[in-house]
Amino acid sequence: MPATLRDVAERAQVSIRTVSNVMRGYTHVSDRTRTRVLAAVEELDYRPNPAARTLRTGRTGMLALIVPEIDVPYFSALARDVIAAAAELDFRVMIDQTGHDHERERELLTGDDREMLFDGVLFSPLVTQAELLEMNPSTRIPLVLLGEHDFDDRFDHVAIDNVRAAHDAVRHLLERGRTRIAAIGAQPQEQYATPQQRTAGYELALREAGIEPNPGHTRSAAHYSRADGYAAATELLRLDPRPDAILCFSDLLAMGAMRAVFDAGLTVPDDVAIVGIDDIEEGHYSRPTLTSVSLDTAFIAEHAVARIAARIEEPDLPPEQIVAPHALHVRESSGG
Amino acid sequence: MPATLRDVAERAQVSIRTVSNVMRGYTHVSDRTRTRVLAAVEELDYRPNPAARTLRTGRTGMLALIVPEIDVPYFSALARDVIAAAAELDFRVMIDQTGHDHERERELLTGDDREMLFDGVLFSPLVTQAELLEMNPSTRIPLVLLGEHDFDDRFDHVAIDNVRAAHDAVRHLLERGRTRIAAIGAQPQEQYATPQQRTAGYELALREAGIEPNPGHTRSAAHYSRADGYAAATELLRLDPRPDAILCFSDLLAMGAMRAVFDAGLTVPDDVAIVGIDDIEEGHYSRPTLTSVSLDTAFIAEHAVARIAARIEEPDLPPEQIVAPHALHVRESSGG
Repeated sequence: MPATLRDVAERAQVSIRTVSNVMRGYTHVSDRTRTRVLAAVEELDYRPNPAARTLRTGRTGMLALIVPEIDVPYFSALARDVIAAAAELDFRVMIDQTGHDHERERELLTGDDREMLFDGVLFSPLVTQAELLEMNPSTRIPLVLLGEHDFDDRFDHVAIDNVRAAHDAVRHLLERGRTRIAAIGAQPQEQYATPQQRTAGYELALREAGIEPNPGHTRSAAHYSRADGYAAATELLRLDPRPDAILCFSDLLAMGAMRAVFDAGLTVPDDVAIVGIDDIEEGHYSRPTLTSVSLDTAFIAEHAVARIAARIEEPDLPPEQIVAPHALHVRESSGG
Repeated sequence: MPATLRDVAERAQVSIRTVSNVMRGYTHVSDRTRTRVLAAVEELDYRPNPAARTLRTGRTGMLALIVPEIDVPYFSALARDVIAAAAELDFRVMIDQTGHDHERERELLTGDDREMLFDGVLFSPLVTQAELLEMNPSTRIPLVLLGEHDFDDRFDHVAIDNVRAAHDAVRHLLERGRTRIAAIGAQPQEQYATPQQRTAGYELALREAGIEPNPGHTRSAAHYSRADGYAAATELLRLDPRPDAILCFSDLLAMGAMRAVFDAGLTVPDDVAIVGIDDIEEGHYSRPTLTSVSLDTAFIAEHAVARIAARIEEPDLPPEQIVAPHALHVRESSGG
């Protein structure tokens, strides 16, 4: 059994703190004490934790969480829940953000040297399955994907059913008598899965109601930000006839859209009903409060962390797809 | 010079990836290849990175950022900027949250085993200086404090001038003709520095205008949340005479307060002007938009990361106090 800090302290007849100070090179330890500690370290072949533990076990006790932007409320709520769920299993969480940069994603996933810092990675990706597979799965550390749902069974992932989520939101607007329902959040690049799925759900609900989707009613958004929601809604409000409802693929888009309706001299929901997806707390206090589809970040975090812990123990587990629940919360922005 | 992954690969006549796979215990490598790689590892006494690097250098390339709650917009914006600034210096960032739990803070700062995971810690603390000093500075790893300003020169810290920030906000309300100015965000416990300093700035500005602070106009808030802002503002609106302005010590408090004014059948700013502190993006789109004091999170992050990097290189540097700039942004909620 390798020597511990305690063994060294006993051998050198000093406190554990003193050994720790010497190991870290603090200069306020007397030369005599330092010499005694270093002698004990050598005699016992002591290696400091956690590096020594990492060498022995191949484990660091650290998970990486990779998200596009940590300051987007959905991702900061997810990070909050992942940190809490990881702590329960005695993991700590390193967070990195890709800033919607494909190259940065690739770098984070393939960096040979770096990946050994982590026992596993929770990844909310922009890249497609094809690109992930290109990163040669045989060299990957344990990986659980979050928030996407078009990956086949070669990867673990935890995600909501994006098609149903968008479908439920549009159905609600149809039930409120809206017929010219627009959507904000389609992406210019085809590789992003979430917007594709949400667009599919949006179109499905319209078709079920006998309404052929109007291509002019679908607006893209490079980022799911307030600014993009504001800009896209401003465009939609200029159409004639004007849409009487907008489904926004994120709550931040919806916040921007609501302000755009207001700045155009119109009202939510009387002139234009607005529904978001994410159910962030901001929408519980906004004027009007925001109808939104909640994604259960606590569920996603708990299941993702449990899954990565299992995969770390047993790397050959068959991949698993876990569908997180979602629920529509009707508030003032759709007449609730 | 210690052997590298490349050395092992050359000796074993396999690719670097294969060595990496063997080191990580992947089972899909053939037994013959595995044996050859392990023989090369032994001959060269190879130790995998970064654990080996950590043992050689005592460095992990990892910083810890410890905040109360990662999903509070101010802290997620700060985390975004810290991750970016750290990446510039080739550090990665582990994030942990204390959840306003004193015990958890103590644990994070004193855990003997754990702290060696990080080269340095950026800490936005709730504990007082006395408590930090109790944690025996001699055992601390490099530490930079964020967001506080009552620590003396025994610690590095990067913070705004909280007294001036609150003072500037109240002065603006006075210039708009408001005289019954309330404040939300004083804390029940005396040990928190930020609320004390902001309260001092609030009272200073009133006294400079010849107004004696009314104790009934100061409300505490256990958390700087929308819910606490809503509750405190609802109480203030019942006073007779009613305050004609409220300084909220965070923008989230202000968001809750604005909704409370609206739910009481009153308007912002006509009946009650509202000013926040933090300048989060939410307040640029809210109805009304929020007047707020911006704290320069990019400045705080850059200086904190530069400082911790310097202290890691040279642990005996004299502590430094860095004051980050702040600026009042006048918007609709105070008649801008």
